[in-house]
Amino acid sequence: MGNRAVVYQGPGRVEIRDVEYPSYEVKDGPGVNKMNVGRRTPHGVILKTVTSNICGSDQHMVRGRTTAPEGLVLGHEITGEVIDVGPDVEFVKTGDIVSVPFNISCGRCRNCKERKTGVCLNVNPDRPGSAYGYVDMGGWVGGQAEYVMVPYADWNLLRFPDRDQALAKILDLTMLSDIFPTGYHGCVSAGVTTGSTVYIAGAGPVGLAAASSAFLLGAAVVIVGDLNEERLAQARSFGCETVNVAQGEPADQVQQILGPSAPAIGQPLVDCAVDAVGFEARGHGRDAQTEKPATVLNSLMDLTRAGGGIGIPGLYVTGDPGGVDDDAKVGSLSLRLGLGWAKSHSFVTGQCPVMKYHHGLMMAILHDRVQIAKNVNATPIPLDDAPRGYTEFDQGAARKYVLDPHGMVRK
Amino acid sequence: MGNRAVVYQGPGRVEIRDVEYPSYEVKDGPGVNKMNVGRRTPHGVILKTVTSNICGSDQHMVRGRTTAPEGLVLGHEITGEVIDVGPDVEFVKTGDIVSVPFNISCGRCRNCKERKTGVCLNVNPDRPGSAYGYVDMGGWVGGQAEYVMVPYADWNLLRFPDRDQALAKILDLTMLSDIFPTGYHGCVSAGVTTGSTVYIAGAGPVGLAAASSAFLLGAAVVIVGDLNEERLAQARSFGCETVNVAQGEPADQVQQILGPSAPAIGQPLVDCAVDAVGFEARGHGRDAQTEKPATVLNSLMDLTRAGGGIGIPGLYVTGDPGGVDDDAKVGSLSLRLGLGWAKSHSFVTGQCPVMKYHHGLMMAILHDRVQIAKNVNATPIPLDDAPRGYTEFDQGAARKYVLDPHGMVRK
Amino acid sequence: MGNRAVVYQGPGRVEIRDVEYPSYEVKDGPGVNKMNVGRRTPHGVILKTVTSNICGSDQHMVRGRTTAPEGLVLGHEITGEVIDVGPDVEFVKTGDIVSVPFNISCGRCRNCKERKTGVCLNVNPDRPGSAYGYVDMGGWVGGQAEYVMVPYADWNLLRFPDRDQALAKILDLTMLSDIFPTGYHGCVSAGVTTGSTVYIAGAGPVGLAAASSAFLLGAAVVIVGDLNEERLAQARSFGCETVNVAQGEPADQVQQILGPSAPAIGQPLVDCAVDAVGFEARGHGRDAQTEKPATVLNSLMDLTRAGGGIGIPGLYVTGDPGGVDDDAKVGSLSLRLGLGWAKSHSFVTGQCPVMKYHHGLMMAILHDRVQIAKNVNATPIPLDDAPRGYTEFDQGAARKYVLDPHGMVRK
Amino acid sequence: MGNRAVVYQGPGRVEIRDVEYPSYEVKDGPGVNKMNVGRRTPHGVILKTVTSNICGSDQHMVRGRTTAPEGLVLGHEITGEVIDVGPDVEFVKTGDIVSVPFNISCGRCRNCKERKTGVCLNVNPDRPGSAYGYVDMGGWVGGQAEYVMVPYADWNLLRFPDRDQALAKILDLTMLSDIFPTGYHGCVSAGVTTGSTVYIAGAGPVGLAAASSAFLLGAAVVIVGDLNEERLAQARSFGCETVNVAQGEPADQVQQILGPSAPAIGQPLVDCAVDAVGFEARGHGRDAQTEKPATVLNSLMDLTRAGGGIGIPGLYVTGDPGGVDDDAKVGSLSLRLGLGWAKSHSFVTGQCPVMKYHHGLMMAILHDRVQIAKNVNATPIPLDDAPRGYTEFDQGAARKYVLDPHGMVRK
Repeated sequence: MGNRAVVYQGPGRVEIRDVEYPSYEVKDGPGVNKMNVGRRTPHGVILKTVTSNICGSDQHMVRGRTTAPEGLVLGHEITGEVIDVGPDVEFVKTGDIVSVPFNISCGRCRNCKERKTGVCLNVNPDRPGSAYGYVDMGGWVGGQAEYVMVPYADWNLLRFPDRDQALAKILDLTMLSDIFPTGYHGCVSAGVTTGSTVYIAGAGPVGLAAASSAFLLGAAVVIVGDLNEERLAQARSFGCETVNVAQGEPADQVQQILGPSAPAIGQPLVDCAVDAVGFEARGHGRDAQTEKPATVLNSLMDLTRAGGGIGIPGLYVTGDPGGVDDDAKVGSLSLRLGLGWAKSHSFVTGQCPVMKYHHGLMMAILHDRVQIAKNVNATPIPLDDAPRGYTEFDQGAARKYVLDPHGMVRK
Repeated sequence: MGNRAVVYQGPGRVEIRDVEYPSYEVKDGPGVNKMNVGRRTPHGVILKTVTSNICGSDQHMVRGRTTAPEGLVLGHEITGEVIDVGPDVEFVKTGDIVSVPFNISCGRCRNCKERKTGVCLNVNPDRPGSAYGYVDMGGWVGGQAEYVMVPYADWNLLRFPDRDQALAKILDLTMLSDIFPTGYHGCVSAGVTTGSTVYIAGAGPVGLAAASSAFLLGAAVVIVGDLNEERLAQARSFGCETVNVAQGEPADQVQQILGPSAPAIGQPLVDCAVDAVGFEARGHGRDAQTEKPATVLNSLMDLTRAGGGIGIPGLYVTGDPGGVDDDAKVGSLSLRLGLGWAKSHSFVTGQCPVMKYHHGLMMAILHDRVQIAKNVNATPIPLDDAPRGYTEFDQGAARKYVLDPHGMVRK
Repeated sequence: MGNRAVVYQGPGRVEIRDVEYPSYEVKDGPGVNKMNVGRRTPHGVILKTVTSNICGSDQHMVRGRTTAPEGLVLGHEITGEVIDVGPDVEFVKTGDIVSVPFNISCGRCRNCKERKTGVCLNVNPDRPGSAYGYVDMGGWVGGQAEYVMVPYADWNLLRFPDRDQALAKILDLTMLSDIFPTGYHGCVSAGVTTGSTVYIAGAGPVGLAAASSAFLLGAAVVIVGDLNEERLAQARSFGCETVNVAQGEPADQVQQILGPSAPAIGQPLVDCAVDAVGFEARGHGRDAQTEKPATVLNSLMDLTRAGGGIGIPGLYVTGDPGGVDDDAKVGSLSLRLGLGWAKSHSFVTGQCPVMKYHHGLMMAILHDRVQIAKNVNATPIPLDDAPRGYTEFDQGAARKYVLDPHGMVRK
Repeated sequence: MGNRAVVYQGPGRVEIRDVEYPSYEVKDGPGVNKMNVGRRTPHGVILKTVTSNICGSDQHMVRGRTTAPEGLVLGHEITGEVIDVGPDVEFVKTGDIVSVPFNISCGRCRNCKERKTGVCLNVNPDRPGSAYGYVDMGGWVGGQAEYVMVPYADWNLLRFPDRDQALAKILDLTMLSDIFPTGYHGCVSAGVTTGSTVYIAGAGPVGLAAASSAFLLGAAVVIVGDLNEERLAQARSFGCETVNVAQGEPADQVQQILGPSAPAIGQPLVDCAVDAVGFEARGHGRDAQTEKPATVLNSLMDLTRAGGGIGIPGLYVTGDPGGVDDDAKVGSLSLRLGLGWAKSHSFVTGQCPVMKYHHGLMMAILHDRVQIAKNVNATPIPLDDAPRGYTEFDQGAARKYVLDPHGMVRK
């Protein structure tokens, strides 16, 4: 049985290749940690991929900003149909349509038991935390492919209650594997709740998912900042206020938006802020074309009221060979922590633990409380068009590309 | 200067009377605790009442179910314009339009410092907790009147940021003094969050406010149960599912509504339940005309999934002279706690600590995230029509009556 | 290979019998739910029982207060050595010394993923929640035996880091399977924290574990109430204040103990209360010899300050054929909920989700922060002496009996 | 009436001077914000200072690391006897012995109502948050003096229940105004709970208070790191493990201490870490004599397990004219946030909101659950000896100096 997949072939190059059909064993290959080779996964299932989305963090690899090896099968945002179950799988059944959290987790270590599935201790020999099709994440084969194996399936998978309903809403549900929970986690960890005023840095798919989440959490005002006017227009399409940071530091524009209803005495500032940009941030104003990795976080400390919270779902890395300077190369940022300290800010970092949120967000989708596909401009394309999707997304298209390997997405 | 007010004159009778213009001292009168007489309130302000709503808990008194004395000035749901400030008031200013939390609190005791303003230790010599115009609550004069004094004004009052905006949305904002936070607190304490399935017992104003809050908190499915078809229709008008409990125990109807998307294995049950009825509950099915005080709580334990939460904003009392039996007369209920225990339920009771929630809910109103006035069918009437309002509300009108003593409510 | 075990043989009778050696399959037998018969457990391990404690909830069965069938193998408080691992077990190893949470859970359902392992949806076909050797809990064979099978071992088991250290502290560590986390959960859910004043109803092992937990959580004053002077003396041995409820309602005695440092204005009351008695409660004062199932909870509402919390780890049941009246027989209690409501009390019920707490409590034991064995008067006895242990415990001995089937407990 | 006080007279110089006796008005003077001049405080009380401690953050000013003006009266750690109450004070009484939270707060703004008293919006015209006797904090006169005025007294003050008991434990209770809650807040915000392993950077008084708090919270292992052997010996005196960071990065030593009971797979790391050092941090190992402001935080990210929390009570500033480089001068640090992000760390910064914790900690002191005076080596000295106290403390004495202006501290 064949298996066509999106494969990283060096900086700027992704191609569709034939790869091995998945099995219940981790095999050697590009990017596979030697300690994981030969690992058996009787607790796994094999999925026929219904959808697999292109993610901004995939772009870090494709731009050559990581040590990702050529030949790596990409894809960690997976929704699929169960077509085979391993011998230790007890509750997931063939025919189930399921969402796969991008963080692989075992359900058997201390962190998983504490719901910290983003830093599972048992799936990646290098460090806590893992993901499919990603550099330095243990070597689990990616899911931008026709078929993919998911380990610890009873633990990891979220089953949709009804097959037809699931396929009808598949462009929304496909966002449950990563960006919707990730944006939501950013908001929750920033303290967004009923009536909050929120600033979200970044109008890419994660930023738009964070903005959608902020509304779902009851936020009063959601302001999105970015350099890309097309993406800002997308944010406005569902009720966000926007700030073009190419015009300078966002503080003035934010204050104008908040106006008389600002909660703080003195300068109007937001209650909560979310960094949906991460380490490849550019500067504001005249520095808008220059990579300035600390810009976003320093800006958020400026914009957020005393006592407020800052959620950081945007990716920061431990090493960045292409970083702008020596500090950036080892993941160091020059942060105005003194400012944050004076305002008693809290900061929450890290991968979103998807399993903490995906059930509730699924229910919100199924009962039409949120239109995440529309908000992020979900755009289904055939598997063969993945290279084009990568290119357009890298150029700033205000779209979330959803690969549809089997033509199962209804138009 | 005169002051016309709604006065309780015995079971079934409320009248408009001239009462004393408020001052910064608690004076003796009907229902005033002797220990509070002469208490000075330099920290208070005098409000010109913009709106003051009739509450279901006022009805308990008017029906003669309490020991409320004749001559009591009613009204604890107050929104007003500050027309005078006491010498110790520092931040509230004349001309401010403000919402008054129905629970009076001092901002200086341990409970207030812990945000438990519903059980303030310093305002009611009888017991923790107080309210304006209410029996056994210390004797603070009610606000269904042209003017009213509010103590500890810097602490208690919520200032609306803009006068014109406030008056334009006054029918929404008037719900911040009690029922909107109360319904919201019921949901929060039941654990309602993104994607929850929720059952709310009671489609009166608090029940409808709880339902509105459930949606604001992101609930996927909100089911409201009541015996009154007109009120159930009101609930359906903003997206609730409904159950008429006159047709029997709600379990079957609830399961039919939840259908295939129910989260629990086995019987479909809700994640969270809210009791917006309280101690005057009637039975279900053939008992629908009979007072059965434990019906609602026992029903909620039946309907709620294992691990779920139950919020109890509906009023239960320590003594009920008109109770159906000896147990009811002392506030005892025959509860199937064994069932709740087997399902690991949690129960949260008590007055809503309004100050914990009113700022966020105000922001949600001002930014059009919720239409609470429409959802509870806010109905402004002149002060003189208060007796009619009490009567119609007692007869089950699907309305929330808002007294408008100065004709400030825009039509 | 043989397996000797403690078997329930009818009201008042437990005997040591030869039973089947455990296997990775649920077999038919006394108390086994038919839907569980034949269920395979490749995810299980077989333990050589190091210790297995007699629990107060076992006594409910042995006294004939349940529908437990004759022939039931008892025992849900198990600590063991792994001597065999099923084919799907990945991280637990032969030779590990492990603690078994008394609640069996799958680690694969919604409740387990939410850490609500006391109401796992997949292990008991009758209802959420399960336990070893217990009536109506699915039919998992008990562990008061030489050997026992534990399913979902990677998920359920807590591994002690060092074998010798574990055996040296085994009388402390054996309390991790049930009573220590259960008492701790009672305190946590009552809100016990640094400086709290706490009342604990019941000086049996769970009450003493709750008292120990209260100190570990930083409580300032821990007051234990019971009718049994020997047990109260045990409570005093580690710093508790005590109240003998045979002398009447505890309120006066509690107020005398709290004295001038009481935090509340007016009557001195505790911040938090724990019900470590459950449905077989007797009355206070002159009713001390009579079963009065609502006594404890009504008393706790009386004793707890406004704004306080009440934790209810004590067992309440859905049916009690031997109950004192018709209400009791169906698990109904006449509760003064009106009083609790007036004080804004919260109530948390249900089985303790052991897995939420056992790691932290193990660390506290291993680093000598708590002496739980001493506090509950852990008393190791040979397996053959189990009948005597049951009898003495039922008579009110101030001891926690620890069965030692293999003589592994160091004296 | 006279008032002798500790006055800052320029870098390295503090002197005892006669200053004005306090009144209920903020008067102009060194460091007083012009907008606060003339502010009336009828809600204030005048205290006879029982004790006032020298704080590490006072040292920042005395070393000349701030813009503190000459003539500033120092002292924000105040315990006193109420000798006069303002006209708006209702519950605090003359003769009460009280603890004063170092953060001045109004109890009337949004942040105070949310318990964020460290960032009160109404007491400091420059920015949210204030303190007595401190640069850029609004100009409230310090309490290292015979007498001091405390505004918003009903809100701010913690009354000790019994005068004699309070004076008997005054060296413990004096720590409630700052370092004990501050250390406790560091632990709470790092997630310290029962069984935690904790690393605390800094063995000065705040570090030792954090270590004491960690034990009170139930920590299993508390490791304190510092360069000062005398202070490390003090930490060992109450059960801490210690690491001398002059010997190099603490990771190896920490791993050796945690040994086999370490909870994480792989490298043994602590669950929680607290930065009790702040912006004047020195390097580790060979850099131990050099100021390296980011050393501590980078080290904590290294030492803390994935999923762990980092509390930052140590002071970081928005401007530091004496900083080691341009970044330091504006409060910027080069942080390895990429490392923290990979481990999903959370960071909580800012002044401790003392009012959230002081009641519970007082109860713990009064009931002998903690010996904070002994642990931090509280050393009472006469007011006149304050200059010596400052000097010795600056030289690294393992003592917490407590000024005793009226000889009220029992020896």
